[in-house]
Amino acid sequence: MSRSTPGRLPALNPRAMRITPLGGLGEIGRNMTVVEHAGRLVILDCGVLFPEEEHPGVDVILPDFSSLAGRWKDIDAIVLTHGHEDHIGGVPYLLRERPDIPVVGSRLTLAFITSKLTEHKIVPKTVEVAAGDRRKVGAFDLEFVAVNHSIPDGLAVAVRTPAGMIVDTGDFKMDQFPLDGRLTDVRHLSRLADEGIDLFLVDSTNAEVPGFTISERDLSPAIGEVFASTRRRVIVSSFASHVHRIQQVVDAAAAHGRKVGFVGRSMVKNMRIAQELGYLTVPEGVVVEPDKLDKLPDHQVTFVCTGSQGEPLAALSRMARGEHQIEVGEGDTVLLASSLIPGNETAIYRVINRLTDRGARVVHRGNARVHVSGHASAGELVYLYNTLRPRNVMPIHGEAKHLRANGDLALSTGMAPENVVVVRDGAVVDLMNGKVKVVGQVSAEEVYVEDGVVGRTDERLLAQRRALRDGGVVTVVAVIDSTAGTLAEPVELLSTGVVHAADAQGAVDRSVRTALSKATPATLTDTDALDMLVRRAAERVLRRRGGPQPVVVAVTVEA
Amino acid sequence: MSRSTPGRLPALNPRAMRITPLGGLGEIGRNMTVVEHAGRLVILDCGVLFPEEEHPGVDVILPDFSSLAGRWKDIDAIVLTHGHEDHIGGVPYLLRERPDIPVVGSRLTLAFITSKLTEHKIVPKTVEVAAGDRRKVGAFDLEFVAVNHSIPDGLAVAVRTPAGMIVDTGDFKMDQFPLDGRLTDVRHLSRLADEGIDLFLVDSTNAEVPGFTISERDLSPAIGEVFASTRRRVIVSSFASHVHRIQQVVDAAAAHGRKVGFVGRSMVKNMRIAQELGYLTVPEGVVVEPDKLDKLPDHQVTFVCTGSQGEPLAALSRMARGEHQIEVGEGDTVLLASSLIPGNETAIYRVINRLTDRGARVVHRGNARVHVSGHASAGELVYLYNTLRPRNVMPIHGEAKHLRANGDLALSTGMAPENVVVVRDGAVVDLMNGKVKVVGQVSAEEVYVEDGVVGRTDERLLAQRRALRDGGVVTVVAVIDSTAGTLAEPVELLSTGVVHAADAQGAVDRSVRTALSKATPATLTDTDALDMLVRRAAERVLRRRGGPQPVVVAVTVEA
Repeated sequence: MSRSTPGRLPALNPRAMRITPLGGLGEIGRNMTVVEHAGRLVILDCGVLFPEEEHPGVDVILPDFSSLAGRWKDIDAIVLTHGHEDHIGGVPYLLRERPDIPVVGSRLTLAFITSKLTEHKIVPKTVEVAAGDRRKVGAFDLEFVAVNHSIPDGLAVAVRTPAGMIVDTGDFKMDQFPLDGRLTDVRHLSRLADEGIDLFLVDSTNAEVPGFTISERDLSPAIGEVFASTRRRVIVSSFASHVHRIQQVVDAAAAHGRKVGFVGRSMVKNMRIAQELGYLTVPEGVVVEPDKLDKLPDHQVTFVCTGSQGEPLAALSRMARGEHQIEVGEGDTVLLASSLIPGNETAIYRVINRLTDRGARVVHRGNARVHVSGHASAGELVYLYNTLRPRNVMPIHGEAKHLRANGDLALSTGMAPENVVVVRDGAVVDLMNGKVKVVGQVSAEEVYVEDGVVGRTDERLLAQRRALRDGGVVTVVAVIDSTAGTLAEPVELLSTGVVHAADAQGAVDRSVRTALSKATPATLTDTDALDMLVRRAAERVLRRRGGPQPVVVAVTVEA
Repeated sequence: MSRSTPGRLPALNPRAMRITPLGGLGEIGRNMTVVEHAGRLVILDCGVLFPEEEHPGVDVILPDFSSLAGRWKDIDAIVLTHGHEDHIGGVPYLLRERPDIPVVGSRLTLAFITSKLTEHKIVPKTVEVAAGDRRKVGAFDLEFVAVNHSIPDGLAVAVRTPAGMIVDTGDFKMDQFPLDGRLTDVRHLSRLADEGIDLFLVDSTNAEVPGFTISERDLSPAIGEVFASTRRRVIVSSFASHVHRIQQVVDAAAAHGRKVGFVGRSMVKNMRIAQELGYLTVPEGVVVEPDKLDKLPDHQVTFVCTGSQGEPLAALSRMARGEHQIEVGEGDTVLLASSLIPGNETAIYRVINRLTDRGARVVHRGNARVHVSGHASAGELVYLYNTLRPRNVMPIHGEAKHLRANGDLALSTGMAPENVVVVRDGAVVDLMNGKVKVVGQVSAEEVYVEDGVVGRTDERLLAQRRALRDGGVVTVVAVIDSTAGTLAEPVELLSTGVVHAADAQGAVDRSVRTALSKATPATLTDTDALDMLVRRAAERVLRRRGGPQPVVVAVTVEA
């Protein structure tokens, strides 16, 4: 994330467009880009980032909306390129600010966001579009291009204004044999290129990966093999939005005479939506309620569940711990048909090891070809740059290393350095006369949601929790006779998460007594000052013990 | 790790050997195996495991020595297969129990452990051995076989007793073109096999990886390319024990007219040892003190430093954060010539991104062939099983999934299931007449070292720290008039790491008053009971707020 200090921005030239990425540049997740022209705004995607170890207690991390303050009425639309959480998860929080912002997206994307908004008790104003559509929304002339990704119905979006045309690929790859036959539409992109793409915002996730991402279809043999070779039940875990992967699993199950039960709230909900809208095709009678599977012999059973990232509360983790009604054991195969999102490795390996300990065979991307990425590799990106010859390229959707690798790919196709804009969240980029320029920086902090509440949890609070995690807490209770300036009784230490704090009682007591003996009358009559005196006296002693330092809470009571 | 309950063990038959793995089976790290015969013990390796997210505050994790209680005098030796921390890191703690246990190992291994023990103020009784040696140590007839690994001078060890022969591979691979020409000695192992290997303990780390691990030598082109293409400084980070990798870096630096400075305490120390003992060969004048490099032009400079796993206090992480005197920037290349140990991904990627943000090019195993594993892949393991035809195989050194995969490889070569022993730490395996049998289980808990102190930190304490991390802490101060059974003043809430705890003050106050009004006289006069009453009353209120639950500390004071 960028930590540059936001400053005053120059006024936007009426003949220019302004592009402000507020998420997804420097980390993968909470993607969001604001496009401005002639006083009007359109927002491209609004996702969330999932918290890591350094964010204890945080549910999700939002983009920083603060640069939109005073501009809510100027927003013509939110355009969603596809239905993944890192592109749509922030919409409920955006719509809290102004619920009637039109939400533009494809059929499946709108179904997913509408379902999510229902949980937030928001009824969105939706505008359904399809690949090939061109539509004026406020000040912006939008055109939608089919792209292939790890969720169906993804769109790239072209935004035209009198100042030029930008194209945002969204997340995409160029699978030449997609399960649904829906290719990333290079001919459509070529028509846009003929007109001239002034700024091309391009998915950077796999820019470091050489060559071409293999086809989703190439997973069929390994998935089929799992079904062919499993004596008892097959339990598949994948992303609840990966409709094509689930389609392959359903097809393989049907081909091997097995029934399928969906397990886990989001899996059940998404597959219902996908089936209703025709994105998931289920042969008659193959999908049944999970409890019906209990009555079938094991070799006719398939469960498809959530938890492929080792989420502790998801179905798969609970099975691994033996805390789920589905008891995994000898003869069962667990298929993790999913990626390994960086940061989740430890959790996923723990689940794999626990399932192995229960006797199950675990098939995962580490030992079989059962997953392929949803993002274009370096070869595909270069192919696009050479085909489309955009005037300027801005890598999006990646950590710093991915953005740089993607920028390097653009340069390798002969683009001039001034036409490749590698920036971080909050950078303000103006486009005029086909030229781009970074003109400033707006706030792009991490905004934490905890228990549904936005922005109350801050970095100071997280630092306190991390300190508590590392060192525990010692509460020092001091009953003070402030007239005499002494302790009325020995200090008491209460500790949580600290090794043998009680050992330090005597030394803390002496330290507090010494500090009290030197205290001024002003300190002795000021509760806050007394608290601080006791806390510091205790910290001095505890620091000498070495090791992780506990947080000290002082409670002073007048005798 | 195993959590089976230890029970009473059958007496060991005088014609049998007993093998008890106390570490390394179920997780990679803290490897340790105890071998017993005729009342005497030999210990093979004694390593540490590094803590993860769920072990806040812990320095390292030791094997559980509790099953050795009362047996210390029976130990004839500790045999160290090689000098990695996960095989030698526990030795100082073992020698605290009995400092005169002979420590057996190769020259480099003994140099590394002696250096470590010096820091612990222990002078070990060492027994140097070399590949090819056969030596009687107490009741055990030991023979040492050269193996190739990511540290020089690794040994497999054969342990013969009248009850049979076991062979422990230690960590190994079968690089056919090792930099030092020291191959894993298959001919030597074959001689042992001709005699008959009753139990073969085999490194499982890469049992899931198909094919053959490529040669260390195959990294030369990519490493050379880094030096050839870098305009300014080359900064290399690798394991401080990976002498061969550092040798390649030193050679490449010399070939490109660069000097090398070692940075970081363990790197400097280990390279000094390796150079003194002749394991690292440095062309005259190539290695210099790091501060000498300041006077050279950037294109003649190479730093070799620690921190390849993203350790926050190591040199590389400090450079990435701009907190090191070596300021990394545009034109520099950082080469991470190292693996990515599971669990460290987030930290490593953060370092890579920060270095990229500073303008450096970062070359790592994700974008170039600059690292190769130190462990044998599936192809090599199968090759060994087919060549040596051991009577029994016991996979060691791996998580549950690795052990199972290794066991499956042994089965795939035609071994009978009763001859493949896949167990977890603490399993007690008896070998007699060429047959193995699991006869029981000893304690194999995780033993935590915190600030040099062994075993004080326990699971209860870690659970408290995790609770503090997730929810913070609220201290509730209640001044109670126990005679009247009421609060003498409103409760006070002090919070650390909690969102708006103060909002709950009124509700907590009411909850405590209600609880007091129902309390018995016995409770009102018992401080512990009063504390619990206040804590529970506060918890009831705070639980209703949803979200992460804070730890509540109650302080009750008599008015």
